[in-house]
Amino acid sequence: MIIVLEEESKALEEGLGGRYRKVKVGRQVAYVVSRTIPKHISERLFGARIVETSKGYQLASREFSREGSKVRIGKAEFGGRAVQVCAGPCAVEGKEQLYEAARAVKEAGATVLRGGAFKPRTSPYAFQGLGEDGLRMLREVSDVVGIPVLTEATSPEQVPLVAEYADAIQIGARNMQNFELLRAAGRSGKAVVLKRGISATIEEWLYAAEYLLLEGNWNVILCERGIRSFDSSTRNVFDLAGMALVKGLTHLPVIADPSHATGRRELVTPAARAAIAAGADGLIVEVHPRPDEALSDGPQSLDPQGFAIMMEEVSRIAKALGRE
Amino acid sequence: MIIVLEEESKALEEGLGGRYRKVKVGRQVAYVVSRTIPKHISERLFGARIVETSKGYQLASREFSREGSKVRIGKAEFGGRAVQVCAGPCAVEGKEQLYEAARAVKEAGATVLRGGAFKPRTSPYAFQGLGEDGLRMLREVSDVVGIPVLTEATSPEQVPLVAEYADAIQIGARNMQNFELLRAAGRSGKAVVLKRGISATIEEWLYAAEYLLLEGNWNVILCERGIRSFDSSTRNVFDLAGMALVKGLTHLPVIADPSHATGRRELVTPAARAAIAAGADGLIVEVHPRPDEALSDGPQSLDPQGFAIMMEEVSRIAKALGRE
Amino acid sequence: MIIVLEEESKALEEGLGGRYRKVKVGRQVAYVVSRTIPKHISERLFGARIVETSKGYQLASREFSREGSKVRIGKAEFGGRAVQVCAGPCAVEGKEQLYEAARAVKEAGATVLRGGAFKPRTSPYAFQGLGEDGLRMLREVSDVVGIPVLTEATSPEQVPLVAEYADAIQIGARNMQNFELLRAAGRSGKAVVLKRGISATIEEWLYAAEYLLLEGNWNVILCERGIRSFDSSTRNVFDLAGMALVKGLTHLPVIADPSHATGRRELVTPAARAAIAAGADGLIVEVHPRPDEALSDGPQSLDPQGFAIMMEEVSRIAKALGRE
Amino acid sequence: MIIVLEEESKALEEGLGGRYRKVKVGRQVAYVVSRTIPKHISERLFGARIVETSKGYQLASREFSREGSKVRIGKAEFGGRAVQVCAGPCAVEGKEQLYEAARAVKEAGATVLRGGAFKPRTSPYAFQGLGEDGLRMLREVSDVVGIPVLTEATSPEQVPLVAEYADAIQIGARNMQNFELLRAAGRSGKAVVLKRGISATIEEWLYAAEYLLLEGNWNVILCERGIRSFDSSTRNVFDLAGMALVKGLTHLPVIADPSHATGRRELVTPAARAAIAAGADGLIVEVHPRPDEALSDGPQSLDPQGFAIMMEEVSRIAKALGRE
Repeated sequence: MIIVLEEESKALEEGLGGRYRKVKVGRQVAYVVSRTIPKHISERLFGARIVETSKGYQLASREFSREGSKVRIGKAEFGGRAVQVCAGPCAVEGKEQLYEAARAVKEAGATVLRGGAFKPRTSPYAFQGLGEDGLRMLREVSDVVGIPVLTEATSPEQVPLVAEYADAIQIGARNMQNFELLRAAGRSGKAVVLKRGISATIEEWLYAAEYLLLEGNWNVILCERGIRSFDSSTRNVFDLAGMALVKGLTHLPVIADPSHATGRRELVTPAARAAIAAGADGLIVEVHPRPDEALSDGPQSLDPQGFAIMMEEVSRIAKALGRE
Repeated sequence: MIIVLEEESKALEEGLGGRYRKVKVGRQVAYVVSRTIPKHISERLFGARIVETSKGYQLASREFSREGSKVRIGKAEFGGRAVQVCAGPCAVEGKEQLYEAARAVKEAGATVLRGGAFKPRTSPYAFQGLGEDGLRMLREVSDVVGIPVLTEATSPEQVPLVAEYADAIQIGARNMQNFELLRAAGRSGKAVVLKRGISATIEEWLYAAEYLLLEGNWNVILCERGIRSFDSSTRNVFDLAGMALVKGLTHLPVIADPSHATGRRELVTPAARAAIAAGADGLIVEVHPRPDEALSDGPQSLDPQGFAIMMEEVSRIAKALGRE
Repeated sequence: MIIVLEEESKALEEGLGGRYRKVKVGRQVAYVVSRTIPKHISERLFGARIVETSKGYQLASREFSREGSKVRIGKAEFGGRAVQVCAGPCAVEGKEQLYEAARAVKEAGATVLRGGAFKPRTSPYAFQGLGEDGLRMLREVSDVVGIPVLTEATSPEQVPLVAEYADAIQIGARNMQNFELLRAAGRSGKAVVLKRGISATIEEWLYAAEYLLLEGNWNVILCERGIRSFDSSTRNVFDLAGMALVKGLTHLPVIADPSHATGRRELVTPAARAAIAAGADGLIVEVHPRPDEALSDGPQSLDPQGFAIMMEEVSRIAKALGRE
Repeated sequence: MIIVLEEESKALEEGLGGRYRKVKVGRQVAYVVSRTIPKHISERLFGARIVETSKGYQLASREFSREGSKVRIGKAEFGGRAVQVCAGPCAVEGKEQLYEAARAVKEAGATVLRGGAFKPRTSPYAFQGLGEDGLRMLREVSDVVGIPVLTEATSPEQVPLVAEYADAIQIGARNMQNFELLRAAGRSGKAVVLKRGISATIEEWLYAAEYLLLEGNWNVILCERGIRSFDSSTRNVFDLAGMALVKGLTHLPVIADPSHATGRRELVTPAARAAIAAGADGLIVEVHPRPDEALSDGPQSLDPQGFAIMMEEVSRIAKALGRE
C-alpha cells in the first residue's frame, strides 16, 4: 500500500511505528507500507492518495501510476510517442572507433550512444574494457558529436565515477539482482537502464526496479534482452510477449535489446522490428564500425549500413502503429 | 546430400547399394544419401542436380530450395506475399458455436478456419473434443461459410479420418516427435501444419519436418507456438527470433500462434503484431464467440471484436513491410 | 473424488448422471468424479470408501493409496524393499549382441532386460530399430537367458505387437503425452514403464499416469530420466529431488534412468548411486557389450565391466538405506 | 597454458611482452598465458612445469592439479576423505537463535556454522539481515561454541568487514558473476564458498572460480545449489550429475546445498543423501531452532531433530562409499 501526501507527516510516521519506506515523488512524499493501516490512522489521512497494490512491488506497479512515466536521457524522452534508439559498440575500444560509431548511429537516427567502459566478462582472460579511460572517451565523443551517452556500472564503487561521465547508467543482466549496485545507482539520481536478468522472472525484474525507485530515483527504464533457454540456436530467447506483459504491469518505459537477445547479426533487424511491433518504447542495439574486428560481441553487432537499414524498417513499423 | 533426377534411375539405386531414401519432388525424383557418393557413380550423374547440405536435415533445408516453398490450404497460399490467418475456437463445442466463429473470423479476414475435434489434454478429466462428430461439423461449416478448415490429428489411425473431413492436418506441439503420426500425416498428402514442440530445439523441429517431407508430402507449414521457460507469467515464451532464424534455415512457410505462446488474451494482439514484424508468413489464433464459456483455452481466446482489432493492427504491420 | 465400492452400482451411476469414470481396482470398483456429490447420493453410499483428493489426478495420487503399490515385471517386484535394475542395450542390433548383453547384465544382478526394437529418433536418417524382428529376438533371449524383457512401443498400433512379445511396455519421454498411446498401453494390461517427458512438470507426468490407470491398468512404474535445461554439459538434468517429491505424491513405484539423464558414461555410476540414495525403487541403465560400436547412445552406455562396478556401488548404497 | 616456475622470471615476463597473468601458487609462481609461446622462449624454460589446458579456465582446471585440492575452514578440511557439513540458519535473527542453532548443529556433527548477516532478497521489503550486528553475533557464537563460521558478502565493500568477523566468505548464487565481488573476495585470502548461479552453465561457474584463483586465493570451494527450470514443484532443480561432472573438471572441492536446491523441508534429507552418493565433498544445510518462525527460508529449513536424522542417514551413505 502506498500513501501519497503533499508533505512529510510526523504523525503518520509515528502512527506507522517506523514500519514504512519514505520516498520523494516529485514534490510529494510517498510512504510505502506492507501492512494494513490501523483505522485510527487511515481516518486521519484526509487528502492523501492511497494506492492499494495487488503485487509485492509497489512504486513500480502500474497501479501506482496509471499514466506511463517518461524518462529522459539527454533530450531523448523514453515512454512518450517517439521510439528512442540507443546504439553503439559493445565496448569502447578507442577514440577513433567511438567517434566513427557515434557519428554513424546519430546520422541514422539514434538518440543515445551506448558503449561499455567496464565490461563484465565470463572469462577473466577476455577484454575487460578500458575503465576510466573509456569513460573519458565516451564523454568527449558525446559532447563533440552531440548525443547523450549510456554506459554500464558493475559495482557500487564505480557508480559515482560513471555518473560523473555518463548521462545514464546501465545495470547489466548479470547484475539485475546486485542489490548494493541497485541502491548505489538509485542514489546517483541518474537515469538507469535496468536490464532483465538472464533467468529473471518478470516479478523479480520489477522488484529490482523497486530497489531503484525506493532510493527516490524515478528515472528508470527497463530493458528486455533475452532470457536463457534450452536451445542454443540463438544466444537467448527474446521474450517480447513478456515485455508486452511488463508494459501493462508497470508505468516505467520498457525498451528492448535485439543484439543480446539473438546474438546473431542477421536476426537483429527482424527482432528489432518485432520489438517495436510488440510495443517497446525503444531499442538498444550494438553497432560497430567494423564488427569483424570488435573485441567483444562482434557476431551480433551491426555495421553502420546494416544499422541504417534497421532504422528504416523499424521506423516503418513505428509509424504503422502511430509512433515516431 | 541430395541427388535430383528427371526420373528414377535403377543404375543409381544399384550404385548406392540401397542406401538412400527416394522421394518424388513434383515430376522429379530426389535421392537423399547420407554419405559421400563413390566417384564412379557421381561421374555418371550427368544432368543431375546435386545438393550438398550442411545440416543433418536435407529436404527441409534452405539449401535444397533457395526459393521459399508455397503451400496451399484451400485458396490460402502460405509462403507468398500475403499473410494468411487461421482462426477459430480451440475446440469444436457445437454447430452453433462453430458457425458463429467461422463467420466472424472470415468476415474479419481470416482465410482458414481452425478448430479441434480431437483434443490432447493434460488431464484425462478435461474435455477431450467431439471426435468424428466435431469433424463432421467442421466440414459442414467450412462448406457453408466458404473457408477451408484445419484440425488436429493425434494418432496415426486418426489421420485418414481427419484427412477425409479437413483441408489440412495439424500436428500439435506434444506430438512434434510422434514419428508414427508424422509418417501417417506425410502419407496423407494433405497440407500439414507442424507445431514446434514445447521444448524442441530448432534443429529437432526441422528434423520432424523432414519426416513429413520424406513421405513425399511437400505441403508442410511450420508453426512457432512458444516454448517452455522458467517464468510462468506467460504460458510459454514466444520465440520470434527463433522463428526468424528458422525462416533462413528452411524453405518451408512459417507461421506463428500468439494464443498458445502467450496464454493471455491481452497479449495476443501485441504478440501477433510482433510475429508479423519478425517475418511470419501467417498466424493461427484462437477466437471464440464467448471466450468465457469456452470448454478449453478460454483465457487466451479473443472474441470476434478483439479479433477484428487484431486483424486491423496486423494488417498495418504487414503493409509497412510490403506484405498484404 | 473417488468412490470405491465392492461392486458396480447402477443407482450410483444414475445418480451421477453418467458423469463419472469407472475403473476396476482388484475386485472393487472405483468411480472417479470431478464434482461434489449431491447429498442425496452420498447419504446412500454406506460402506463405500470415499477418497477426497487434493490434486487433479486422482487414481495416481498417494491419497488414493497410502501404501505404495507394487508392480511386477516377471519375477521382479518394483516398489518393494528390493531395488530392481533393468539393463541392456539402447537398441536391439542383433541376436549375438543381445545374448551377450542379457547374460552380462543378469550375471551382474539386473532383474529385467531392456532393449529397443522400435526406436524413436530425432533424425529420420538414424537407425530406427529392427521392428518385429527385434521383438522376436528379445523374446527368445529373454526365454533362454531367463530374464523378463521391457521394450518400447511408439504408437497405439504397435502396442498389441509389443505386448505379445514383451513382459512390459515402455512409454518413452517423447511420448509421455501421446495420449492415444497411453490409452492403448493401459488397455494392454501389461506392466508399463512411463518415462517423464523431457520438459514435463511433475503434475503433467502424474496426469499421464492417470490416463493409464483409468484403463484399469494398475501396473504402472514411473521413470525419471532427466529434464531439459539451459546447460548442455550433461544431456539432461537428472531431477532426483523431483523424483523424491513424486514418491510422496503417488503410490506408484518410481525408478530412475541415469543413462539418458547424464548422457555420459563416466557419470552413470555416480548418478545411479545418487538415484538410489534419493529413494528410487530401481534403475534402468544402458549396457552394451561394446559401447563404441553401438548404433545408438554409445557414449552413455556402460560396458559389462562398468555395469558390474555400478551394481556393486549401488548395492552398497541400497544396503546403507536398509534396502537390497 | 600455464607455466609454473620456482620463482619469478623477468626474462619470461619480457618474452611474453606483458601478456600474462601472474599468480603465486604456494612457493611457486604460475604464469597464465592464453596464446602459444614463441619457440625461443619455450626453449629456455628449463625446469618449468608447463600445463597445456583444454578449457578456457586454466587454474581451476583439473589439468592444472590432478590431485584434488584441500581447503580449510577452521579445522574442517574440504576435499579430503571426510564429508564436511555446514549448517545453521538462513539469516542471523538474534543471539539466542544463533546459539541454539550453533549448538544443535555442532552436536549433530556439523563442522561449520552458516548464517547470513547480509541477505540479498528479491524484494526490498523483505528482511535484509542484521548487517554488522549479525557479523558480531556470528563471531561470538563461533568462538563460544567452538565452530568456524561461514557467511555471505554481497558487495566488494563488505568483503573486508566480513573477512574480519568470519572464517569463510560465501558468494551467493545471484552474485556468481559479480566479478568485482569475486576479485575482492579473492584478495581477502579467506576461504570462499562459491555458489553456482541459478542459471549458470558449468563452464561459467568454473570461469567465476578462475576470477578468485587469479587473485592468488586457492581456498575456493564450489557449491551446487540447484538451477532454475520450468517446473516449480521444487524451488530449483538439484543438478547432482552436473556436480559429479564438475568434480572431474576441477581440482577444487565441491559441496552441495539441498536446502536451496529443493526449497522443501521434506526433500532436504533425500537430496542430501543423493548429493553425498553422487560424490559431494560436503553439504550446506539450513537449520533453524523453530523453522516456522524463521524470517527467511523457513519452509526449507530443518529443525535440529530433522537435522540429526539427516546427519545419521548421510553418514551411512558416506561410509558405504568409504568416506567419513
